[in-house]
Amino acid sequence: MKNRVITISREFGSGGRTIGKKTAEKLGIPCYDNELIGQIAAQSGFNENYIKDAGEYAPGGRLSSALWNRAFGPTNEDYLWKIQYKIITDLAEKEPCVIVGRCADYILRDTADCLKVFIHADMKFRAERIVKVYGERESSPEQRLRDKDKRRAAYHRFYTDMKWGHAQNYDITLNSGTLGIDRCVDIIASLY
Amino acid sequence: MKNRVITISREFGSGGRTIGKKTAEKLGIPCYDNELIGQIAAQSGFNENYIKDAGEYAPGGRLSSALWNRAFGPTNEDYLWKIQYKIITDLAEKEPCVIVGRCADYILRDTADCLKVFIHADMKFRAERIVKVYGERESSPEQRLRDKDKRRAAYHRFYTDMKWGHAQNYDITLNSGTLGIDRCVDIIASLY
Repeated sequence: MKNRVITISREFGSGGRTIGKKTAEKLGIPCYDNELIGQIAAQSGFNENYIKDAGEYAPGGRLSSALWNRAFGPTNEDYLWKIQYKIITDLAEKEPCVIVGRCADYILRDTADCLKVFIHADMKFRAERIVKVYGERESSPEQRLRDKDKRRAAYHRFYTDMKWGHAQNYDITLNSGTLGIDRCVDIIASLY
Repeated sequence: MKNRVITISREFGSGGRTIGKKTAEKLGIPCYDNELIGQIAAQSGFNENYIKDAGEYAPGGRLSSALWNRAFGPTNEDYLWKIQYKIITDLAEKEPCVIVGRCADYILRDTADCLKVFIHADMKFRAERIVKVYGERESSPEQRLRDKDKRRAAYHRFYTDMKWGHAQNYDITLNSGTLGIDRCVDIIASLY
């Protein structure tokens, strides 16, 4: 019998991570998010910050990869992808859980009984939220959001060939800006 | 104070219309779907079947329009769009209700307090459903679905410039195939 797993993809600043954590708490199951990065770091030997970044760049999306001709073999990102794939598959096999980000929906498409969730919100909601949560940066919050969205979509597209944010890829998508974070948690938990 | 309106966009065969009707019943408010077509027919003088069809063709999407150079003025579809726009705006002004299809989400974007829903399901679920609900046809159910999806997306795109089925355009999207029709009804009603 397959474990029941909830995967949460999310736009940056939409509160998807918070929704994942709260849902997991409500259901009494673990939530994997930054923990995943730690595990990938331990198994790959790469630095955690590098892995965080690599999870948002499609190969070719930054200089190191752009200079690397893929005809010579896999990139660092490809190597990380394989480790990530294995870790997520193992987690889902071990116990019911919530997994935030890292293309878990795609990775588990055949191996787990998966509720696939996507969380998004409009620019204004997210801009206010990232300034509150992560503080001010040199570039405007809107610029940071556009940049992150573009990178996540490209990464997702590269490794999964699925269009990020397309309703058809998920069981449910929720606008945390209009519905509110707690309501999103209630709905997801009720579907478990 | 704006009326609270639920708009339901849906893939053909996903049960979106049934979900709309059941949600409206549960909430004790009217649901407009085929009734809309009757009203558009009465106000336009066009035949109901023509209107049903026109709601799924972007101008240029069928022969009559393809032969009509838009430089000479609006097409029949443009004329119907205006009537439809007015009818839907009036309905939302009159009372709380559920409106299925007809780009109501876009039409009401500024004039109503709108819960925007999109219903979809995978090909297999929809193929079985349309054969059960609408019977066999000459072309395969899969072919009929692909054809309808394409036309609805083009129509939506033409008149609203929004991408049909993009999570970001809706408050909530639901996979009726994996979640089941009754569960979709419960979730939508709980958000009202």
